[in-house]
Amino acid sequence: MNPSNQHQDQMLETETRKTPANASQTAVTVLGLGPMGQALAGALIRSGHSTTVWNRTSAKADALVKQGAVLAPSVRDAVLASELIIICVLNYDAVNDILSTATDALKGKTLINLTADVPERAREMAEWANHNGIDYIDGAIMTPIPTIGEPSAVILYSGPEDVYRSHHRILASLGGTASFLGEDPGRAAAYDVALLDVFWTAMSGYVHALSIARAENIAAKDIAPYAHNIIRIMPDIMTYMAHDADRGVYPGDSSNLISNATSMEHIIHAAEHHGIDSSVLIAAKAIAQKAILAGHGEDGFSRLIEYNLTSS
Amino acid sequence: MNPSNQHQDQMLETETRKTPANASQTAVTVLGLGPMGQALAGALIRSGHSTTVWNRTSAKADALVKQGAVLAPSVRDAVLASELIIICVLNYDAVNDILSTATDALKGKTLINLTADVPERAREMAEWANHNGIDYIDGAIMTPIPTIGEPSAVILYSGPEDVYRSHHRILASLGGTASFLGEDPGRAAAYDVALLDVFWTAMSGYVHALSIARAENIAAKDIAPYAHNIIRIMPDIMTYMAHDADRGVYPGDSSNLISNATSMEHIIHAAEHHGIDSSVLIAAKAIAQKAILAGHGEDGFSRLIEYNLTSS
Repeated sequence: MNPSNQHQDQMLETETRKTPANASQTAVTVLGLGPMGQALAGALIRSGHSTTVWNRTSAKADALVKQGAVLAPSVRDAVLASELIIICVLNYDAVNDILSTATDALKGKTLINLTADVPERAREMAEWANHNGIDYIDGAIMTPIPTIGEPSAVILYSGPEDVYRSHHRILASLGGTASFLGEDPGRAAAYDVALLDVFWTAMSGYVHALSIARAENIAAKDIAPYAHNIIRIMPDIMTYMAHDADRGVYPGDSSNLISNATSMEHIIHAAEHHGIDSSVLIAAKAIAQKAILAGHGEDGFSRLIEYNLTSS
Repeated sequence: MNPSNQHQDQMLETETRKTPANASQTAVTVLGLGPMGQALAGALIRSGHSTTVWNRTSAKADALVKQGAVLAPSVRDAVLASELIIICVLNYDAVNDILSTATDALKGKTLINLTADVPERAREMAEWANHNGIDYIDGAIMTPIPTIGEPSAVILYSGPEDVYRSHHRILASLGGTASFLGEDPGRAAAYDVALLDVFWTAMSGYVHALSIARAENIAAKDIAPYAHNIIRIMPDIMTYMAHDADRGVYPGDSSNLISNATSMEHIIHAAEHHGIDSSVLIAAKAIAQKAILAGHGEDGFSRLIEYNLTSS
C-alpha cells in the first residue's frame, strides 16, 4: 500500500468525521519521534493535517507512516516540507544539534519548540531564532503523553502573540487546553519549571510518607486513600496562599510557622526513629526556622515564599 | 440564666432535631480547650451529650458553658464527672502534666487522646494507661477545626477494638468519618505523621514554586490554577505508586528515575539562576541519584520508598 495514498484516504476520512476548516491545506513538520513526539504527530494526523516527520532513528516513524505521515530523509527536507515546524526532543542541546543542520531552511518559517528546559534557555533560543529570521514560540507540555490530542491535555505557549494566533487552530489539534501566556518566550518554561517543582516535591513527600508507613507496617494501599484526602484539600489552600503571595501579606491566623515547624519536627522525629532519611523535610524545616528566627513565627506558611528568595 | 437549665434545654432541642439514642445519658469530659478542644466540646454539646470541660485557663470555657457545658474546677473533678475522657492539648508532655494530677481518678475509665504526636509516644502512653487500669484509645484529627462535628471531618483511632466500639456512637458526634485502624495504639499517630509528611512537603514545593514564579514576574494567582491541575493528577499516581510499594516492584515504563532526576535538575538550575534556596529539591534529587547510582535508574519514582529507608 502506498503510504501517500493512505495519507490522502485518511485525511478525507478524518475531514468527513471532524470537518476541520482547511485542515487539508495545513502542512506541519514534527522533528523528534520519542514517545511525546510520536503522540504529537499522531494527534496532528488524526486532525487531518498533512504531517511530515523526521527522527534520527527513522524506524520510530513506522507507525506514523502507516497512519499517513510522510517520513523526511533529513532535517532539511522535513523543514522544507511545511511552514510550521514542531520540535520535541530530550533537551535544548538536542534541539541545537538538530536545527544547526537546517538553520537557513527555517528562515521565514515558524518554529514551535515543545522541548522542556529552563526559562533562560528558552529566551536564548528565541534570540537565536530572531537572529536567523525564524518566528519562534516556546511551549511546555504539562500533561502526560496519553492526554495529547485529548480534551485533558494542557500545553502552554509563549512568544510573539501574532505568531501564536496565526497557528492557534493547528495547535488546538494537540490537546484540549492551549494557553498563551504572553510575549516573554521564557514564560512557558517558567510555568513548566514552577509546576514541576510542585509535582516533584509533593511526590518526594509521598514516597517519604510511604517509607514511614512501611516502617510502621502500614500497607501503602491502606494509607493512599487518606493521602488523596490530604491532596484534595490543597487547591483551596493554594488559592489563598497565592492571594497572600500577590499581596505580600502572610496572615498566620489559622496556622502559623511556629506550629508548622513543630509539625515538621514531629515527622522528622518519627521518621528518624526508623532510620529513614529525612533530608527533604529537614531542609524544608530549616527554611521555616530561618523565618521564625527573623521574627515571622506568627506568620502563615506563605511567608516562606520570601525566605526561599533570600540568601541571608 | 442558669447554665445547667440552658444545658437541658439545648439537649432536648438537639435530641428533637437529631434524636440520638440515649444521647442524654452519655457523659463526656473534654480536657484542654484550645481551639481544637473547644471545637470538640462544642460538637459533643450540639449532639446532646452531657459535657464537662476543664482548661488550665478557665476563661476558655466561657462560650462552652453558655452552650451548656459544665466547667470542672480541677482535672480530678473533670475526670470524675464522666466515664469517657477526651484530651486534646499541645503535645504529650502537656498530656502527662495534666493527667499526672488525676491518674487514680482515671482508673476504670476510658481515655481518648486526640493530641498529635509520634507513634512511639502513643505506644508509651498506652503502656502507662494499661499500667494504671485505664482503657486507652489514641486518636489523630486529620482535618481542620471547622470540620469538627461536620460530615467532612476525618478522625483516626487505634487501640483496643472493644473499647473503641463501646464509644463509637459518641465519637461519631465529633465528625463525619471516624476510622478505626487497629489495635496498635501507635497506628493513628503513624497515619497522622505520614499524611502530614505528604502535606508539609507538598506545601514546601508550592511555596518554592511561588518563589520561582515571583522571580519570573508571574503573579501567584496566574499560576495557582495550573498548580491545582498538577495536584489533581496526583491521587491516581498515588494509587499506582501504592500498588508498586505493596508489591515491592517499581516499574519505570511511563517515567523513570533518570528522567525524573533530570526534571528535578532543571528546576534546581532555574531556581538557582534566581538565587532561590533549593535545598529541599536538592535533597530530593540526592535520594533519586543514590538509587540511580545503585543501578535503579530505569525504575519508577516509587523505588525511592526503599531509598529513604536505607542509610547506605
